[in-house]
Amino acid sequence: MSRTLGVLISGRGSNLQVILDAIDEGRLDAYVAIVISNKNDAPGLERARKAGATTAVLSHEDYDSREAFDEAVLGRLSEHDVEVVCLAGFMRILSPVLVRAFPNRILNIHPSLLPAFVGLHAQKQAVEHGVKVSGCTVHLVDEELDHGPILLQQTVPVLEDDTEETLSARILEQEHKLYTEAIRLVLDGKVRVDGRRAIIET
Amino acid sequence: MSRTLGVLISGRGSNLQVILDAIDEGRLDAYVAIVISNKNDAPGLERARKAGATTAVLSHEDYDSREAFDEAVLGRLSEHDVEVVCLAGFMRILSPVLVRAFPNRILNIHPSLLPAFVGLHAQKQAVEHGVKVSGCTVHLVDEELDHGPILLQQTVPVLEDDTEETLSARILEQEHKLYTEAIRLVLDGKVRVDGRRAIIET
Repeated sequence: MSRTLGVLISGRGSNLQVILDAIDEGRLDAYVAIVISNKNDAPGLERARKAGATTAVLSHEDYDSREAFDEAVLGRLSEHDVEVVCLAGFMRILSPVLVRAFPNRILNIHPSLLPAFVGLHAQKQAVEHGVKVSGCTVHLVDEELDHGPILLQQTVPVLEDDTEETLSARILEQEHKLYTEAIRLVLDGKVRVDGRRAIIET
Repeated sequence: MSRTLGVLISGRGSNLQVILDAIDEGRLDAYVAIVISNKNDAPGLERARKAGATTAVLSHEDYDSREAFDEAVLGRLSEHDVEVVCLAGFMRILSPVLVRAFPNRILNIHPSLLPAFVGLHAQKQAVEHGVKVSGCTVHLVDEELDHGPILLQQTVPVLEDDTEETLSARILEQEHKLYTEAIRLVLDGKVRVDGRRAIIET
């Protein structure tokens, strides 16, 4: 693999920063070829520019269908020879156009122990449900929300006095480590997928 | 509290044995006043008798409604001055008759990190879903399956070559410790319930 990454964002892109930092500090041997945002005011675009990464804004509102938007994204990713796509707070469900173009090479990180607490505000869901342990999950992306084969999971305790904010902060620390590790495993060809199970070859 | 327990079983009652052993070994200051099974051939009945516990069989088939069955169970529990009810593989959803008679004093243990993998064969569900971590949960029982406020959770890794059997065995080791600890917390009055959150007072 050429180890080129494409990163898709919609907002502040804190996990984009994680990837950029890991590369900068030599902990991840990869290259961010392009950062694409579907929102032109995403603060993550500025992070990308500061790190010298190429950026593009493709607003989904400019396209008639999910597929047409995904075709445009795919075009940009292909122009930059992207091998692995990392979602970093990208608020769109992918269509088969993108999923099939990158089989088992699109990653997402979610701030819960999936399949618990799918969707938005996973940390708030966890606090309100009263779980005693939560965490984060890196998974391969399929056409369902927060659903594809799970690569890595890290547990985080939920404390009696946790709020959404304090739990989010504790989980975020672990997200940083976990996403870097998962991207490395995919780039190194250590992931085999069998049905909905991702097997890590060690 | 008089620290008297009632245990409800439907099958082999491996978690009944855990409770009996913990009491026998002095790790749990409690007394099993009655073990009730809704199946007359439940192997757990023999465990109870060996430990000298009083047993009763109440077949749900002998009652016209869930409520009528629960009234009969409640009658037996009351006769024995039961303070806390422990489900140990009891395959019935409780009606309000029992739930309201023992507010926040009915416990269940489930072999997953709830709310993930509710219902039967939770360990098989976990293996097939491809999670990297599972575990067990002790929760207070309400009128929904595997649903009430969570008292304690313990994580267990899921290994690449795990089967339902190997994962079940690894979780069961933790179930033993967790159930004893949770029963102790309830008997000691250390549990406060706020909405669907159970707060452990330390």
